[in-house]
Amino acid sequence: MPHSYLKPLLDNNGSKIILLVLDGLGGIALTPDGKTALEYAKTPNLDRLAEEGSLGQTIPIRYGITPGSGPAHLALFGYEPLEYVIGRGALSAAGINLPVKAGDIAARGNLCTFDKNRNILDRRAGRISHPDAAPVIALLNQVQIPGVEVEVRQVKEYRFVIVMRGDGLDPSLNDTDPQETGVQPLIVEAQHPKAKKAANLINMWIEAAYQVLSDQPVANGFLLRGFATDPGFPSYEDAYGLEAVCIAEYPMYKGVSLLVGMDVIEDVGTGAAGEFTAAKDHWNEHDFFFIHIKKTDSYGEDGNLEAKAKIIEEVDQAIHILLDLNPDVIVITGDHSTPSVLKSHSWHPVPFLLWAPKTHRTDHETSFTERNCARGGLGTFPAVETMSLALAHARRLQKFGA
Amino acid sequence: MPHSYLKPLLDNNGSKIILLVLDGLGGIALTPDGKTALEYAKTPNLDRLAEEGSLGQTIPIRYGITPGSGPAHLALFGYEPLEYVIGRGALSAAGINLPVKAGDIAARGNLCTFDKNRNILDRRAGRISHPDAAPVIALLNQVQIPGVEVEVRQVKEYRFVIVMRGDGLDPSLNDTDPQETGVQPLIVEAQHPKAKKAANLINMWIEAAYQVLSDQPVANGFLLRGFATDPGFPSYEDAYGLEAVCIAEYPMYKGVSLLVGMDVIEDVGTGAAGEFTAAKDHWNEHDFFFIHIKKTDSYGEDGNLEAKAKIIEEVDQAIHILLDLNPDVIVITGDHSTPSVLKSHSWHPVPFLLWAPKTHRTDHETSFTERNCARGGLGTFPAVETMSLALAHARRLQKFGA
Repeated sequence: MPHSYLKPLLDNNGSKIILLVLDGLGGIALTPDGKTALEYAKTPNLDRLAEEGSLGQTIPIRYGITPGSGPAHLALFGYEPLEYVIGRGALSAAGINLPVKAGDIAARGNLCTFDKNRNILDRRAGRISHPDAAPVIALLNQVQIPGVEVEVRQVKEYRFVIVMRGDGLDPSLNDTDPQETGVQPLIVEAQHPKAKKAANLINMWIEAAYQVLSDQPVANGFLLRGFATDPGFPSYEDAYGLEAVCIAEYPMYKGVSLLVGMDVIEDVGTGAAGEFTAAKDHWNEHDFFFIHIKKTDSYGEDGNLEAKAKIIEEVDQAIHILLDLNPDVIVITGDHSTPSVLKSHSWHPVPFLLWAPKTHRTDHETSFTERNCARGGLGTFPAVETMSLALAHARRLQKFGA
Repeated sequence: MPHSYLKPLLDNNGSKIILLVLDGLGGIALTPDGKTALEYAKTPNLDRLAEEGSLGQTIPIRYGITPGSGPAHLALFGYEPLEYVIGRGALSAAGINLPVKAGDIAARGNLCTFDKNRNILDRRAGRISHPDAAPVIALLNQVQIPGVEVEVRQVKEYRFVIVMRGDGLDPSLNDTDPQETGVQPLIVEAQHPKAKKAANLINMWIEAAYQVLSDQPVANGFLLRGFATDPGFPSYEDAYGLEAVCIAEYPMYKGVSLLVGMDVIEDVGTGAAGEFTAAKDHWNEHDFFFIHIKKTDSYGEDGNLEAKAKIIEEVDQAIHILLDLNPDVIVITGDHSTPSVLKSHSWHPVPFLLWAPKTHRTDHETSFTERNCARGGLGTFPAVETMSLALAHARRLQKFGA
């Protein structure tokens, strides 16, 4: 359970919380006169919120740890990321709304290209296009073996998810992907005795499926990895008494949200303005809004500081849509840093802005940047405390002890 | 045990520590031009200590958690508040210096008014005055039943504490207070088989006591709640090697101090000057002085920022009494925040000033305010680290490891 001491204190007072995550928000300036994307961007509206509210910075997982998207979001949601681990297969399945229940097993798959001896020529089948891959993945979905039910669904391009449903299955299985070319895919073996049945069944299915694809011109094979089952996390409703909703463009973030029991709005429009308008359109139905902006991270990974700054400016220009809803609390932060100079996720602390006009404590800082956040009134704290702070500032937590 | 790694390092060097707690010290300014009581107050002497020493801010319990007074003080004393839990009855008994040993059970009581069918008309007997309630509570103290010894003592007005002493008693008992009027008080039931004996005895005593009060005009009944026993905490002497003393005007804080084995000075004069003079009068008898100022919290709860600021100014003007004693360490902080704008305890970080002229590290900050503390050299840290910092700056902790 996210911080178990919270639950006895919960007071569902109808207040509304927005958690706005700009993926990979944090950057680094390598020199004193250098700028991060957040510093480079013109953000008069976010700066006003920063001046009025409280700044801080979060450690996403632990000091020095560069998070993946899954654990970084779980931390923001209050789920200790070293304790709450999602298998990749389950995460991918959730991201395309493919049900995985406890006892089912799910895995990620890539279409690939084999030579005639089933050695891997290309691990991604030449990055076959989405329309070209679709009929191949449809063929896989028709492969069935006795005793279990198998569902295969395309994610994007050459990527798919497989779910096997039946009795006595356990996901303690190795990947078939050897992570190199020129060799055959690996046989699935049980990593634990209780997974022997699942290993036998999945190997049987794989062999049948290889046969089905054998006459395909490019995508005549596939590789599986990340076997997992439903992690069975407590829900937001259970942990926090919140009717939570996810507003995100990308499947991955919908997937994590589903795993903590959030509703997901499927049609969210485009960009910050589109997503914020979706929040407006569904304002009365929920009391917690997780809004996810993807492209700050994408441009950070491209090393494109200007484009990342432009996304931040779009958020700044659209933020009035959220403010006009009179939320009790807005948290604006990232899940991790993605410095453009590193072109990757990083371990650096993440800027954090808390604006709660009835309860925040203003501090000395007047603009929303990494350097100001590092001196902010909230200090430096673990991202897993985000929900505790949001609930407190929404007056949703009663006093602890007498 | 408070941080078990401290004990092997203790070095009783005779240095003296003052922990000065301004209850509910922290406030919030909701706008950049707004002021907290601490910002509003003129505190030239505290500002000088702030300039010379180190500032920081504490998280009393956990991020977002609003503490009650008990857990907030236990944290300041170095007792992890989620681990060291005091039952309310035991806390109240300690607060009026009524001994509760392991195996005794204590509960809080209210005089109340019953109708002729023993339905509750008024849960507080019309808030009967202290002198009017005293003889009624004296009657209760005379009610005895075979096999146990019962002591009943007035706390204030209609409130009292009952302690039952005997063999085989367990405090796993429900309240008799139904928290509403128009119904009868609840029967005490054992919440655990081992509490059956205690349940039978307390019900027997209650029935006898109801008979004794039956002809009272107003306070013809009572309600009990918070059954508890001595929590058996390690003492300050054991944990820290300190001869500690509590200087406080209010019973609650004396109570918590007794539970960690502090001595308590009963006659502490009035206001900051009175309490500081009490410290002076007993300076040679102790090496740790917990001094508690209550009214910062009381006025915060009243929403009276000016009055709260005035109490802070009284502390500022009297602080020379403590400085003249040449303590090795003074910590000036709160147990939690009580922002006047919220009129209640809150979860916000608490300003913290550490002045130890032979060992402190000065920082950039020059005045004792929430905003300056947020940027102070000690950073943001859990209140449960207060004692470690105090002991260290008093040179009472040896090196850890070689």
